[in-house]
Amino acid sequence: MIYLDNAATTKVFDSAVEAAKTAMTECYFNPNTTYPIGVKANSDIEKHRRAISDAVGAKNGRLVFTSCATESNNWVLDCCRKNAKGNVVISAGEHSSVYEPAMRLKNRGIDVRIVAIGKDGTIDEKAFLDAVDEHTTLVSVIHISNETGAVNPIKRLVEFTKRIAPRALFHSDGVQGLLKANTSIDSLGVDLYSASAHKLGAPKGIGLLYIKNGVNIAPLIVGGGQEQGLRSGTQNTPYIAAFASALDECKKMIDYAKSVRVRAELSKIFIKNGCKIIGDGNNSGFILCVCVPGVKAEILQNAVSSYNIVIGKGAACSGSHRGNRVLSAMGLSEKEIECCIRISTFVDTKYEDAISAAKIILDTAKRIRSGNV
Amino acid sequence: MIYLDNAATTKVFDSAVEAAKTAMTECYFNPNTTYPIGVKANSDIEKHRRAISDAVGAKNGRLVFTSCATESNNWVLDCCRKNAKGNVVISAGEHSSVYEPAMRLKNRGIDVRIVAIGKDGTIDEKAFLDAVDEHTTLVSVIHISNETGAVNPIKRLVEFTKRIAPRALFHSDGVQGLLKANTSIDSLGVDLYSASAHKLGAPKGIGLLYIKNGVNIAPLIVGGGQEQGLRSGTQNTPYIAAFASALDECKKMIDYAKSVRVRAELSKIFIKNGCKIIGDGNNSGFILCVCVPGVKAEILQNAVSSYNIVIGKGAACSGSHRGNRVLSAMGLSEKEIECCIRISTFVDTKYEDAISAAKIILDTAKRIRSGNV
Repeated sequence: MIYLDNAATTKVFDSAVEAAKTAMTECYFNPNTTYPIGVKANSDIEKHRRAISDAVGAKNGRLVFTSCATESNNWVLDCCRKNAKGNVVISAGEHSSVYEPAMRLKNRGIDVRIVAIGKDGTIDEKAFLDAVDEHTTLVSVIHISNETGAVNPIKRLVEFTKRIAPRALFHSDGVQGLLKANTSIDSLGVDLYSASAHKLGAPKGIGLLYIKNGVNIAPLIVGGGQEQGLRSGTQNTPYIAAFASALDECKKMIDYAKSVRVRAELSKIFIKNGCKIIGDGNNSGFILCVCVPGVKAEILQNAVSSYNIVIGKGAACSGSHRGNRVLSAMGLSEKEIECCIRISTFVDTKYEDAISAAKIILDTAKRIRSGNV
Repeated sequence: MIYLDNAATTKVFDSAVEAAKTAMTECYFNPNTTYPIGVKANSDIEKHRRAISDAVGAKNGRLVFTSCATESNNWVLDCCRKNAKGNVVISAGEHSSVYEPAMRLKNRGIDVRIVAIGKDGTIDEKAFLDAVDEHTTLVSVIHISNETGAVNPIKRLVEFTKRIAPRALFHSDGVQGLLKANTSIDSLGVDLYSASAHKLGAPKGIGLLYIKNGVNIAPLIVGGGQEQGLRSGTQNTPYIAAFASALDECKKMIDYAKSVRVRAELSKIFIKNGCKIIGDGNNSGFILCVCVPGVKAEILQNAVSSYNIVIGKGAACSGSHRGNRVLSAMGLSEKEIECCIRISTFVDTKYEDAISAAKIILDTAKRIRSGNV
């Protein structure tokens, strides 16, 4: 099996499952109780929080556990203070969990400004400078595009924003950036940063929001006052353990230079065979979006699955929608978008596996075109 | 170890952990993708959803998975349509995950009416009749009190509400009621019903919201459009599997008459030893709130933990708050509240274990009073 869709396959995944299993049994109890085994679960959560914080460089803020990055993104868009005169700035390249809450704000009468993205998938910086003004209360720009791997210059955007609107909060959706961007959260200068553990090999159902010290955000989910009053609901101790464990394994195994090499080699092979790399420029080594002309992505995806190859097709999170908002914003036609596959390597992806998968994908595409599949 | 705090210990817990483990490995993939192993994860989720629906009698509605009942409760309070003229009615016995969102509504200018509860812990029906009027848009009354096990007459309250305010939505927090109330969700007549799987032995981190057919509620968390657009975010397949499995085991093991017998016997023993049962009347067999005079609950809780007995002390979810809003609303003094312990039996609690634990608790209390602990 060759997984090229953000899936962990080896030690990372095993260690995450093991950590979750252990915590399920040993830390079954409610971490918010006052009896010893509850207190133990709580101290385990805090231990994992510190480990995650150290691993991702979050010394200047606190990490609040949520059920997923979608929740974290909704939280930020929904709960950052906004005033009638203020405006919210996002990029056209946002994941739907930022874009949809922003549309909800717009429907409530908030001035939401959507900044264009270029052909390389990154934000149009000139347009961004035009959009941000002294009334901007919130900016949300994705760190690394989940569609193309395009890396936005977050640090520069933060600096610019703070110059023009010192009180604005800057949020970045870091789902594809956490650890994989080879930068600490602190160093980005962001006020808020969302992440999901399953992009690092943990089970689906745990995420976080980094909140820089001094930043105030009202909770989205209130009640028992867990997570220092910032996210109520009994914590998911097993998945928090899995998060810490997966991150630790990923950190040991990650080889940024290798991921860039693999991506470059894959790009070369696809281009040589008449395909087009979508959003090529300053990209994460872990995501490659390829347009395979004349072959619908869904058909190709299904055909290669019989070779035990798993590839993506646009964001799974928008699987039920037609088209692809982000690729459209990059200027692709509907016809091109239909033929776009997404290859996501992981820290454990072997160079040879990726290359041999690419060859099978191209071979299968050829046979689909000639009607032999 | 004798767990008397809503914790599963035997087959239920083992089967839930096993189901989660299996799904973690076999259903690792994103259920919203179009490739075969993603489709498989999705079909597993739907299989579990049907099983849960059958087990809890939810044929007249759909079940939407959330991260916990706190999320479900926040969702309902936050997203049911409300208009400037309308009002929201809740009981004074609500869990903080209903009460706090209701207070948030109040701060936004919504007319929130809090109906008193009686000494038995159930809603004051006369006061309820006074509170509901033709402008009521939402009612939220807890099914079974998490503090005392008091059972509210949900069906009757629904019927009354619909007569006075036919378009009002009726929600019930069913965390302690799901399966344990020995009634189907459908038969309650509610529009919305929240539940959490960890009260049935599954890991913490999965809940649901029942939405009666024809009822419209806007999503709280938007984005990828998962759960038919009602709850975005990649589903937690392993915990959904664990939910179904735990529920199935619970259903096989549950013995309502036995739980009532155990509760009655425990009550007798505590009363005989000078303790007071809080909120005694029509109670769930699974929850018993006892005031042990002169002994602070936290001290007792810690002392009995050395005998491997785990008991509760008010809602864990309000562990960080001082006092206890619900017990206060029942007329208890601060001094009494400090001495209230909560004993929650589970489907697998053995009669002898519960009785012997009660004796140890009383014995320990005696020694604490005389300064021998």
